Amino acid sequence: MRIGELSRETGVSVASIKYYLREGLLPAGELTSPNQARYGAAHVRRLRLIRALIDVGGLSIAGARDVLAAVDDETVSLYDALGRAQAAVMTRTDAVEDDATERAEKALAEMVERRGWITSERNPGWRTAVDVLATLERLGGERVAGLLDVYAEALEAVAPHEVSAVIDAGERERSVERMVTGIVLGGALIAALRGMAEQSVSARRFGPPPPDPAAPEESG
Amino acid sequence: MRIGELSRETGVSVASIKYYLREGLLPAGELTSPNQARYGAAHVRRLRLIRALIDVGGLSIAGARDVLAAVDDETVSLYDALGRAQAAVMTRTDAVEDDATERAEKALAEMVERRGWITSERNPGWRTAVDVLATLERLGGERVAGLLDVYAEALEAVAPHEVSAVIDAGERERSVERMVTGIVLGGALIAALRGMAEQSVSARRFGPPPPDPAAPEESG
Repeated sequence: MRIGELSRETGVSVASIKYYLREGLLPAGELTSPNQARYGAAHVRRLRLIRALIDVGGLSIAGARDVLAAVDDETVSLYDALGRAQAAVMTRTDAVEDDATERAEKALAEMVERRGWITSERNPGWRTAVDVLATLERLGGERVAGLLDVYAEALEAVAPHEVSAVIDAGERERSVERMVTGIVLGGALIAALRGMAEQSVSARRFGPPPPDPAAPEESG
Repeated sequence: MRIGELSRETGVSVASIKYYLREGLLPAGELTSPNQARYGAAHVRRLRLIRALIDVGGLSIAGARDVLAAVDDETVSLYDALGRAQAAVMTRTDAVEDDATERAEKALAEMVERRGWITSERNPGWRTAVDVLATLERLGGERVAGLLDVYAEALEAVAPHEVSAVIDAGERERSVERMVTGIVLGGALIAALRGMAEQSVSARRFGPPPPDPAAPEESG
């Protein structure tokens, strides 16, 4: 099909399709003339995956490019692809070397040791967790930083189910696709349910929600 | 202080400061001449907060603007500010009306009913959760969508601690600031620890992580 048909089929605008082609998220179509290309079912599927990762999963273009490269590159193992998907949903931060960072590193290392987690400073989450904890301390959010073990315990309960749900033994490309989708969208689901759970707790504690929506309503 | 000093004091470039001023994230300084302004301690604190929300918390400019507006607007209640912070860390999606969406709505409503959560369709998480579940179904991620109760149970355990940690009875502006910081950075901490917990589980299940790709390869 031509690009216009690909757009109609997926509901993604031609401008967006051209952008994804330029950014290397979507493989080029088969050239049928110097300025016309033909696209197929694989492009339809890839476009749906791109939109899911970006619109629903909240990935940046760079994050989506990185996980899609893992899907396409047969030399990337399932294990590495899992790591890429995890990294894509985390914020990347610049380390600041100060006392707050030192204390955060110590708190994180002690938590990992205490809970017997098999992970290391090489996991991208390690650096992010240290920076979040240190930033919380700098901004007066020590009580949230103090929830480290509460969060760790909850994620420890969730992780075995997640790994079971995203790992499958099928054909490589589809398996990696499904894993990446599961990890990225699972993160978005956690954020959404977290807001609902917090609303429920605060409603129980402080009374029912006021008549106005708790968050600004989406405009038209 | 002048803008250059504000930049040195916070480590934020003058260009970025001007961008935040234009985007309404940072209040204007006090004009001392038609093209020179003076900034104070409140600007230093606000800049640190902006960087924490964006760089560490992963908020978009629009998301940061929305939560900072809640900090500054004294008519916004703590409850509403909590909702705004929760909404800022979620992806916003466009509803697609199809069978997958209908099934997702039903699954979510049943989970909320079963667990007795005090929340409603007005919570921004509701729409996002429905769209994530429906997208997972469309892309073959039903097994991750099936973790709805696993996620809900984990967040139910976390939410009371989070609400206690972010609510405080101090002076309004600082309280809202701390709440917003806690909710946004707490979300970033969850994402980071999730990646570490998943690595730990998969290492336990499938063997230790492969050698660091950056490290020299072992011979043989």
